[in-house]
Amino acid sequence: MSIITIERKVLEKNDEIAQLNRTSLKQHGVFSFNLVSSPGSGKTSLLERTLEILRGHLRMGVIEGDVQTDFDAQRVARYQVPVIQIVTNGGCHLEARLVQEAMAKMDLQQLDLLVIENVGNLVCPANYDLGEDFKVVVVSTTEGDDKPLKYPGMFCHASVLIINKIDLLPYVNCNLAALKQNALNVNSSLRVFETSCTTGAGIPAWCDWLKEQSASS
Amino acid sequence: MSIITIERKVLEKNDEIAQLNRTSLKQHGVFSFNLVSSPGSGKTSLLERTLEILRGHLRMGVIEGDVQTDFDAQRVARYQVPVIQIVTNGGCHLEARLVQEAMAKMDLQQLDLLVIENVGNLVCPANYDLGEDFKVVVVSTTEGDDKPLKYPGMFCHASVLIINKIDLLPYVNCNLAALKQNALNVNSSLRVFETSCTTGAGIPAWCDWLKEQSASS
Repeated sequence: MSIITIERKVLEKNDEIAQLNRTSLKQHGVFSFNLVSSPGSGKTSLLERTLEILRGHLRMGVIEGDVQTDFDAQRVARYQVPVIQIVTNGGCHLEARLVQEAMAKMDLQQLDLLVIENVGNLVCPANYDLGEDFKVVVVSTTEGDDKPLKYPGMFCHASVLIINKIDLLPYVNCNLAALKQNALNVNSSLRVFETSCTTGAGIPAWCDWLKEQSASS
Repeated sequence: MSIITIERKVLEKNDEIAQLNRTSLKQHGVFSFNLVSSPGSGKTSLLERTLEILRGHLRMGVIEGDVQTDFDAQRVARYQVPVIQIVTNGGCHLEARLVQEAMAKMDLQQLDLLVIENVGNLVCPANYDLGEDFKVVVVSTTEGDDKPLKYPGMFCHASVLIINKIDLLPYVNCNLAALKQNALNVNSSLRVFETSCTTGAGIPAWCDWLKEQSASS
């Protein structure tokens, strides 16, 4: 049995469980997204800002994926939302099975929105469906404007692009228009938001859009 | 045959080829390192600064690893050094076999130092020996000070830590002392440099150290 066959079987099995997760979320009326990016792009900060604004409007839950530590779960728990930490112990991405186990520990009846924050990795999580409604990829201006072209897989699989740390644009070598165009060249259907978790810029627009999506889901 | 067995066999095969690469580099008197980090930490910028300073002192060659595009090879080629681009086509790390193929295209007799720039990924490349003398992990201040604790594998496998983008410290939420201490808590033998590829700070110290290492190798 070749390695490629094994990999295909792993992905097939993952997709089967992802479909079970998706069905369960739909049955409970829970809208969900999978937050992906490089390490340090600001996924957790964005999530904190989002929780701050939306917690009066939507009942939210969070699944945190990390290679090690429960630092992110601790940060999120301060917003009084249910949070389950998955530690992958070296694993480079979340899999549907891990999310299924985490979901079993949550009361889905009590949720409108489930956010799954993936391991910081711009490559591997692209191929693993977790059962979410869509993927949101975060890229920060400090990473440069060429990343969508150098790591196209993730940008192809995402429905939303959040360009974060726009407050740092004056200090870094990043052309915002080029970054956006590079992303749209890879995936023309991306919905793009520009945010700063430091100044708060762009966060209300992102949250308004999430509310709309949740209402119409 | 289980997936874990397959994975172990893949790593064993990789390590065998890495050992062949290492022997070949030693036979040709070539000193080498494997440059690893998250996407956008500044690996290529650091390499450009290093080539600028060292090209009169050491005969250098570069192997560039990217998921897609040859942008980095194009940047490096401007410094008139031999460069081979490896495109992994979605692969999340370089493997010894790919480096072996790239090395076969270089005239090792003409080199003192070979730099292998890995795919931007703070997780997967940690487990793949390529035959290099040591790994250099780059982390930028914009990624925050918790990354060594959240992604310990890479910091354990590296010999050198370069903290890059120190010019951005006034604008980001990163405690430099904590970042350094977190890295040393994971691996107390790390040699640490602090750099900015924008201002050039710290680059001469790093280059001086590289010259010493090359001379004593």
